[in-house]
Amino acid sequence: MDIEDLKTRILAGERRALARAITLVESGRADHRAQALSLLEALKGHGREALRVGLSGTPGVGKSTFIEAFGMMLTAQGLKVAVLAVDPSSARSGGSILGDKTRMERLSRDKNAFIRPSPSQSQLGGVARRTREAIDLCEAAGFDVVLIETVGVGQSETMVAEMSDLFLLLLAPAGGDELQGVKRGIMEMADILLVNKADGALKSTAVRTCADYAGALRLLRKRPQDPEGFPKAMTVSALEDSGLLTAWEEMQFLADWRRETGQFAGRRAEQARFWFEAEVRERLLARLKREPVKGAMEALARDVEAGGLTPSAAAEELLRDYLQMG
Amino acid sequence: MDIEDLKTRILAGERRALARAITLVESGRADHRAQALSLLEALKGHGREALRVGLSGTPGVGKSTFIEAFGMMLTAQGLKVAVLAVDPSSARSGGSILGDKTRMERLSRDKNAFIRPSPSQSQLGGVARRTREAIDLCEAAGFDVVLIETVGVGQSETMVAEMSDLFLLLLAPAGGDELQGVKRGIMEMADILLVNKADGALKSTAVRTCADYAGALRLLRKRPQDPEGFPKAMTVSALEDSGLLTAWEEMQFLADWRRETGQFAGRRAEQARFWFEAEVRERLLARLKREPVKGAMEALARDVEAGGLTPSAAAEELLRDYLQMG
Repeated sequence: MDIEDLKTRILAGERRALARAITLVESGRADHRAQALSLLEALKGHGREALRVGLSGTPGVGKSTFIEAFGMMLTAQGLKVAVLAVDPSSARSGGSILGDKTRMERLSRDKNAFIRPSPSQSQLGGVARRTREAIDLCEAAGFDVVLIETVGVGQSETMVAEMSDLFLLLLAPAGGDELQGVKRGIMEMADILLVNKADGALKSTAVRTCADYAGALRLLRKRPQDPEGFPKAMTVSALEDSGLLTAWEEMQFLADWRRETGQFAGRRAEQARFWFEAEVRERLLARLKREPVKGAMEALARDVEAGGLTPSAAAEELLRDYLQMG
Repeated sequence: MDIEDLKTRILAGERRALARAITLVESGRADHRAQALSLLEALKGHGREALRVGLSGTPGVGKSTFIEAFGMMLTAQGLKVAVLAVDPSSARSGGSILGDKTRMERLSRDKNAFIRPSPSQSQLGGVARRTREAIDLCEAAGFDVVLIETVGVGQSETMVAEMSDLFLLLLAPAGGDELQGVKRGIMEMADILLVNKADGALKSTAVRTCADYAGALRLLRKRPQDPEGFPKAMTVSALEDSGLLTAWEEMQFLADWRRETGQFAGRRAEQARFWFEAEVRERLLARLKREPVKGAMEALARDVEAGGLTPSAAAEELLRDYLQMG
């Protein structure tokens, strides 16, 4: 593969080149990995900055409808929008349930939009690296907004929040009891809660739900670095296209605030460190899954199970003889 | 230190020798660690088997009162009882809040009882190893029952369950809403739920609470390997000494069942493997905290923060140049 050519075409904003580059960063093959690293290295210093927006919401809240309507509004303003999906569950189900282009038919035909479904990968670590690198590629390709969508299984929300400039939580209108269904940790990560489906028969419920969430947000400790009124709860209707512009204005306001206070760059720097450390840990542990360590570990584990060695003595032996740690 | 002498005295059931050996396994010094491993190695094959009982419960449920009353009942039967405490929070608070002998005054004076408070250690991993090895030492010293008490902060319950033959959860009488306060994961680990304080004014509440928990247990998936009726909920009063004998009989019944079906030995073998693998992982990751890797990692992290290197490229460099992973 001609990395220099791919680089040029990505910088020219060619969607096919972008898609090809993302396929490259998703690959598990060693030669692909080396090429992916060269490409990312070559693209550095392009000077472009997308707004990276994380979006979470459980199934049924209308995520695809929201992304389609929100994305169309942005492209109508002349902005280029990329949508990446993170779905750690797709490895199990054998296919992605997110980022399906058929669910966002209009947006997928929009020449200023790029939609990429979640790859099938078995480990959250692999998905994290792929998504992080895909974001970099979209940014290099000149996209103004990168939406990173997750269904919120397990740790995927934290992961997406760790690669976003802003984090949105999409919610459905619901009764008071159901409010408790939102994990506290997610509430604390979100910058803006959007109560969707504020239309038709659900409108009054949505308004009430929004007020309940606004109350709940006030109970959480205020983040001292945020401007007044954040995190905030708002109603939107993806179906009727209402509230989306206001939500976008709030996002821009918060992004600008963070840029002016230096938090924007600071957060990206922290995130880069976070992912570096995470990748080192993960790859170090990956040694245990490779021969000859894997076989030695299994043999020692059987000895430990049989009572021939204590867990500590066996660990000592493995580390000394197979991992060069005296 | 004369390891052979220490071994002989532990096998003779000398409590002072046991205490000294536990201090040895708790030590972070390299020479102590080597001695501790020799001692554990020398003690192998003693042929004694204690019943290891994990006990969890939030503060206020009466854990000390329960352990004292339960322990006294066991020693009155001629059994030898050791109490070990696991308190991962003690590292932060600077001292243990568990296993405090002054809270178990009668039991601590009983010649057939041995109480050991939680050491101050900073990492759950360190606490896990120390506790596991202390259990082995108590077993070698001829104790019939080893109670491992935890306050249930973070992962400590899982840790205690992973080193116990049986796991008990002590609960206080409470209203229906508060039942939800018990984490689902803990309910699923417990073999017996004991609703304490079934005495005086709280008795009827305790009985109702117990019925509620029994109902909740029926909603959980039955563990196919358990005998009929387990996990079960029971009321006890540590204050009035009631229900303790029945609880002990149930524990013995379950332990015997597990012995006869081979689960007892199978579980211990699995636990040994679990701790071996956990210790290998933990010690491998500990390399990242030692020089020269630590310094190199920090320098690379700063480069990553500044945008000079991608997280992946920096991870690659560290692994190749400092951890001999090409």
